[in-house]
Amino acid sequence: MSALSEAHTQLLIPVAALVGIGFALLQWFLVSKVKVSSRDSSNGYKEKLIEADEEEEGIDNLEVSIKCAEIQHAISVGATSFLFTEYKYLGVFMCVFGVIIFLFLGSVRGFSTKSEPCAYNQGNICKPALANAFFSTIAFLLGALTSVLSGFLGMKIATYANARTTLEARKGVGKAFITAFRSGAVMGFLLAANGLLVLYVSINLFKLYYGDDWGGLYESITGYGLGGSSMALFGRVGGGIYTKAADVGADLVGKVERNIPEDDPRNPAVIADNVGDNVGDIAGMGSDLFGSYAESSCAALFVASISSFGISHDFTAMSYPLIISSMGIVVCLITTLFATDLFEIKNVSEIEPSLKRQLLISTVLMTAGIAMVSFFALPSEFTLFNFGTEKEVKNWHLFFCVAIGLWAGLVIGYTTEYYTSNAYSPVQDVADSCRTGAATNVIFGLALGYKSVIIPIFAIAIAIYVSFSLAAMYGIAVAALGMLSTIATGLAIDAYGPISDNAGGIAEMAGMSHKIRERTDALDAAGNTTAAIGKGFAIGSAALVSLALFGAYVSRAGIKSVDVLTPKVFIGLIVGAMLPYWFSAMTMKSVGTAALKMVEEVRWQFNSISGLMEGRTKPDYANCVKISTDASLREMIPPGALVMLTPLIVGTLFGVETLAGVLAGSLVSGVQVAISASNTGGAWDNAKKYIEAGASEHAKSLGPKGSACHKAAVIGDTIGDPLKDTSGPSLNILIKLMAVESLVFAPFFAAHGGLLFKLL
Amino acid sequence: MSALSEAHTQLLIPVAALVGIGFALLQWFLVSKVKVSSRDSSNGYKEKLIEADEEEEGIDNLEVSIKCAEIQHAISVGATSFLFTEYKYLGVFMCVFGVIIFLFLGSVRGFSTKSEPCAYNQGNICKPALANAFFSTIAFLLGALTSVLSGFLGMKIATYANARTTLEARKGVGKAFITAFRSGAVMGFLLAANGLLVLYVSINLFKLYYGDDWGGLYESITGYGLGGSSMALFGRVGGGIYTKAADVGADLVGKVERNIPEDDPRNPAVIADNVGDNVGDIAGMGSDLFGSYAESSCAALFVASISSFGISHDFTAMSYPLIISSMGIVVCLITTLFATDLFEIKNVSEIEPSLKRQLLISTVLMTAGIAMVSFFALPSEFTLFNFGTEKEVKNWHLFFCVAIGLWAGLVIGYTTEYYTSNAYSPVQDVADSCRTGAATNVIFGLALGYKSVIIPIFAIAIAIYVSFSLAAMYGIAVAALGMLSTIATGLAIDAYGPISDNAGGIAEMAGMSHKIRERTDALDAAGNTTAAIGKGFAIGSAALVSLALFGAYVSRAGIKSVDVLTPKVFIGLIVGAMLPYWFSAMTMKSVGTAALKMVEEVRWQFNSISGLMEGRTKPDYANCVKISTDASLREMIPPGALVMLTPLIVGTLFGVETLAGVLAGSLVSGVQVAISASNTGGAWDNAKKYIEAGASEHAKSLGPKGSACHKAAVIGDTIGDPLKDTSGPSLNILIKLMAVESLVFAPFFAAHGGLLFKLL
Repeated sequence: MSALSEAHTQLLIPVAALVGIGFALLQWFLVSKVKVSSRDSSNGYKEKLIEADEEEEGIDNLEVSIKCAEIQHAISVGATSFLFTEYKYLGVFMCVFGVIIFLFLGSVRGFSTKSEPCAYNQGNICKPALANAFFSTIAFLLGALTSVLSGFLGMKIATYANARTTLEARKGVGKAFITAFRSGAVMGFLLAANGLLVLYVSINLFKLYYGDDWGGLYESITGYGLGGSSMALFGRVGGGIYTKAADVGADLVGKVERNIPEDDPRNPAVIADNVGDNVGDIAGMGSDLFGSYAESSCAALFVASISSFGISHDFTAMSYPLIISSMGIVVCLITTLFATDLFEIKNVSEIEPSLKRQLLISTVLMTAGIAMVSFFALPSEFTLFNFGTEKEVKNWHLFFCVAIGLWAGLVIGYTTEYYTSNAYSPVQDVADSCRTGAATNVIFGLALGYKSVIIPIFAIAIAIYVSFSLAAMYGIAVAALGMLSTIATGLAIDAYGPISDNAGGIAEMAGMSHKIRERTDALDAAGNTTAAIGKGFAIGSAALVSLALFGAYVSRAGIKSVDVLTPKVFIGLIVGAMLPYWFSAMTMKSVGTAALKMVEEVRWQFNSISGLMEGRTKPDYANCVKISTDASLREMIPPGALVMLTPLIVGTLFGVETLAGVLAGSLVSGVQVAISASNTGGAWDNAKKYIEAGASEHAKSLGPKGSACHKAAVIGDTIGDPLKDTSGPSLNILIKLMAVESLVFAPFFAAHGGLLFKLL
Repeated sequence: MSALSEAHTQLLIPVAALVGIGFALLQWFLVSKVKVSSRDSSNGYKEKLIEADEEEEGIDNLEVSIKCAEIQHAISVGATSFLFTEYKYLGVFMCVFGVIIFLFLGSVRGFSTKSEPCAYNQGNICKPALANAFFSTIAFLLGALTSVLSGFLGMKIATYANARTTLEARKGVGKAFITAFRSGAVMGFLLAANGLLVLYVSINLFKLYYGDDWGGLYESITGYGLGGSSMALFGRVGGGIYTKAADVGADLVGKVERNIPEDDPRNPAVIADNVGDNVGDIAGMGSDLFGSYAESSCAALFVASISSFGISHDFTAMSYPLIISSMGIVVCLITTLFATDLFEIKNVSEIEPSLKRQLLISTVLMTAGIAMVSFFALPSEFTLFNFGTEKEVKNWHLFFCVAIGLWAGLVIGYTTEYYTSNAYSPVQDVADSCRTGAATNVIFGLALGYKSVIIPIFAIAIAIYVSFSLAAMYGIAVAALGMLSTIATGLAIDAYGPISDNAGGIAEMAGMSHKIRERTDALDAAGNTTAAIGKGFAIGSAALVSLALFGAYVSRAGIKSVDVLTPKVFIGLIVGAMLPYWFSAMTMKSVGTAALKMVEEVRWQFNSISGLMEGRTKPDYANCVKISTDASLREMIPPGALVMLTPLIVGTLFGVETLAGVLAGSLVSGVQVAISASNTGGAWDNAKKYIEAGASEHAKSLGPKGSACHKAAVIGDTIGDPLKDTSGPSLNILIKLMAVESLVFAPFFAAHGGLLFKLL
């Protein structure tokens, strides 16, 4: 048995979660100390500003501060109203899909309420399939609600923080950085702790009914992952279309045709653009990473429940995935202090290294943490389920599995940084190719994206091989969890990006000085890179998670091998590999179509509202917000349906083997498309920023803003928008969502699936 | 036994091949009747032209005709000299790789010259492994030489035909069409007939040594496919880089910066561009399709040799793949007459339907042909090898296998046409998106390419499922052969494209009238579509061929299952799926880098050669030819090495299972990348042509040439160039070449492979 007692485990996990939530609230409190005033509370205003240490230009400019508050308010209202509208749709979807889950799983044994022999622990009696249907549905709803909550809280924090970051930028880049970073941390910790707590509480509540039937218990819990990821899908796709329709539309008319700067308040689409950052990059990404986290926990728990942990009812060992996550919260807490308290940012050039250091520190600390957890929470030797056979495993094997996932994440993060940061030659080469126009810029950018796939894939392959060899599918699941164990830090540096981006937008709109805009731009450039790193993590972990879910699905469906040499599997494989393309075609086209509408609206406003270009009259922001909202809600349905229906259709008509092929195919193909799309987009964005910043001789020779080179770079940036913020990051949800859905529905497909082949 | 006797088979195959060659020569003769005069033979000139039926503007303009002859001569000299330089490199490669094959395969049994028990036909005695090494090497060299010859002949014919097409365009679009189409047919028939003949003769010669050991005989013959495809790889990549470096370079300076038309003789890169069409699109594509043809034949022959055909020594049934190809030549011959003699093209709008009709006619006729061959050449019932087990098959099962491959090809062809022809809404939507600039054009184009993958993948999946279910791996191999059975027609309409493209170039350079240029442009626009169709065929057949080769490899390596759930296979799968990206990154970057050099050279010439823009002085064409030549020869080596070395390294270090994973991964991922890249590029090209032609109200609203929309379209076209002519079409060689190489080296990997795992 494990060295740690069940009572200790039952205490440790909720304590860690509560510590995480407490730390998040503390960070929020610290952020809230930066005051943003609005007109109606402007009486106490003067006094607050006098508190500032270093006064700088414009610092006591009340007008500017009030303007910031107004813009922040507009963004927050826009984002909240969009999310509420989106959630109405999602609510309907949740109800419908909840019913589907219940009916499909209930029908496995004809809605019988009789207990039956256990599937894995032969001889014992387990709860009826109907209970499984019921609790899976409940878990699904819980996962969905937690996911929605994660996204919503992230958005609230981000919109709360953006104007504060702008105002702090007046005092210096260091202060602004800390505000943005702390806000990111609020989101990171809330999300990680919340996810853990809900999962922990659900398991304990479900146990009241399931008692000793841990197989049934953890099978039902997989619904939690499905709920999390299905919300994430719509969040990513809907938010992605929203943000990029606005962004592309704003850029095409504003920057390219009218030659006005980014985020200029005269641009009618500017509020929609800033709202989009919060609903797409923040809320979507929060839901996405929460989904990955929930799924890898569920996959690990399910495999453990049918292994010796589950059969001998060792609660501490069963909870190994949750204890890893608890340790992760503590490690990330310490890591955060390095950024906010131990080191101070004094210079623009220190931002990116500081963020990179966060990754490294958390990885090193977490490695020690994993070792501790592995030795205390696991028996020194045990057996794991391995597709019908059993595998002897030692506790240090699992240490290596989690650690290799963690370090593979770091490798992916650093590779992504290398390919998307303008401090290195790949992005500089792309910028240089703008000399000969947009076409070469696009060719070089696409080539860069393709190339950036190589190292991450090798890192993932090595992680898979090692963890698979050491501990079969359980190894893969905990490797994924290892990559996500530092999720609080990952999310903090990831959310930091859009917050800085918004801060820059607010500075521009509030008419702040060039110097402040330069500071927020520097924050934003680092943010582009960290956003790409975050996407790298999301994709890498999605690959591992999907494989773990795939393994769990195969176990649950009772398949003994997935042989490529059988036609059923091979056609699944090739069609599965096609799905990421189909999905990308839909999302890219959606962004393109919505952007065209946005362009027409913005052009129309510039042409018809007199005095707009001169700044005498205000544009109609609301119309642009409406275009983005309508487009994203309408257009998120077909790609969502593609992902949600494929496993159901394939499983029902073609059976479990073909579905296994589809999952494997979409996994190995989707990872490549996702990584290359994200990095290509990130590189184009930073190539453009490189030219704009003009920080080196080389960069100056390509600039300044408005030069032919810069225009070519802007075209690349615009093309990259849907790649990096809509289709690319949605793909990791595609692969893991199809896998978790197959896992949840596996008993149904095994019992009633393959209708078409049965007919032929 | 088969209804057809061995003696009849021995007669029929060479006769069909000779008929094909004879028909090709007849077409050549008909093309040669169009006289192109050069200054030194201008005495007989006047008289020839008077023979023309309908005299049109400029028809008796001696100067123009002489100019055409000169340009044709320059292109032909450039192409020949490039191919000879390329062949020097390839000669070295052939020798080195021949030695590698001999050493690797010879070492399987330690270079022993002793006969040994047969692998598949236990109890009998077979030839030594050393003989296999020797004959595989010979077959490799024969395949390589035939491939080189196919490419070279194609290029010769194309450069012979281009000026003739231009001159005929003066008489009308119908005449020009027939000249271009006949020239394509010369290439198609020569290539199909040659490939068949060399293979047939080799088998009969090898039989003199092998006697009854058909397993050994057909194992050695697989080297023929390897030789064909490895030459095709370098041809496609080298030629692709050549043509696109020149094309992109010429367009970027000429069309975008200097506002001069395409193919303007003042553009220094114009000759290199036209040379490129012939070495890339013609020679490369000829080698490619020959490779597919050789490989599918080899895969089918190998599987048959270890099935009942081989064991009972039924020569006619064994030769079923060759008889199918013989029937294909006859069917294509009849089909060609429909285009050249039965229907006459009178109008520009009839060109595309006429080419499409060719596809349909050949498919319908061939279906009847396959039925005949299947009933006469096969026993009514027999057993096929199916990974260690045997499968009972009837002759009509094989009819369905071949037919479904054939019809899947038609579906792919028509789908490609729908997505790349400017007669339909997909391309028109892309053209329309140019209203908002290059960025939306690129976004829509990428989305179109992704979307165009869906139907071909379903067609391939259905073909695989049906043929696999009916006749295991043999079914897949003959399905691939079915798709390629009408290769002569496919190549004819494919080669027609670059010939028309060159004809347009020559018209422009020779200063012919606007009217003639319009005719050649119409021919060319149809040619873009048919080129895309040809690529669709090449990719579709490559997918089937690779799967057949993959099956043959698995059989030869003695693997019983390729289970995705084993870590060895899965890491192969995910890394294999990454290879197309790595490969594309290399080729795209190569084109980009070479194009940058070309741009600098062209800019420099425009700036430094006085009077160039005014047409008073000639540019230095030779320098541009040199840049393209150097770039393509230097840059084709790394991607070539990636493809050639991957199977050797993976097989030797990681063993046969991981290699099986790599093959499956690169197959399912590469097909998608290849189809989307080709179609995206084709669509951009035709969207541009759609705007230029201005044939509808909608098209007119986007044009004319030089408008903002048109400029955006040109950027898309330029980006599409390396996608559709370099990286896209090279990918199908990547997947099949790795498969055939694995098949040839399978005994070595099975005996000595997996070193790394053995060490661990």
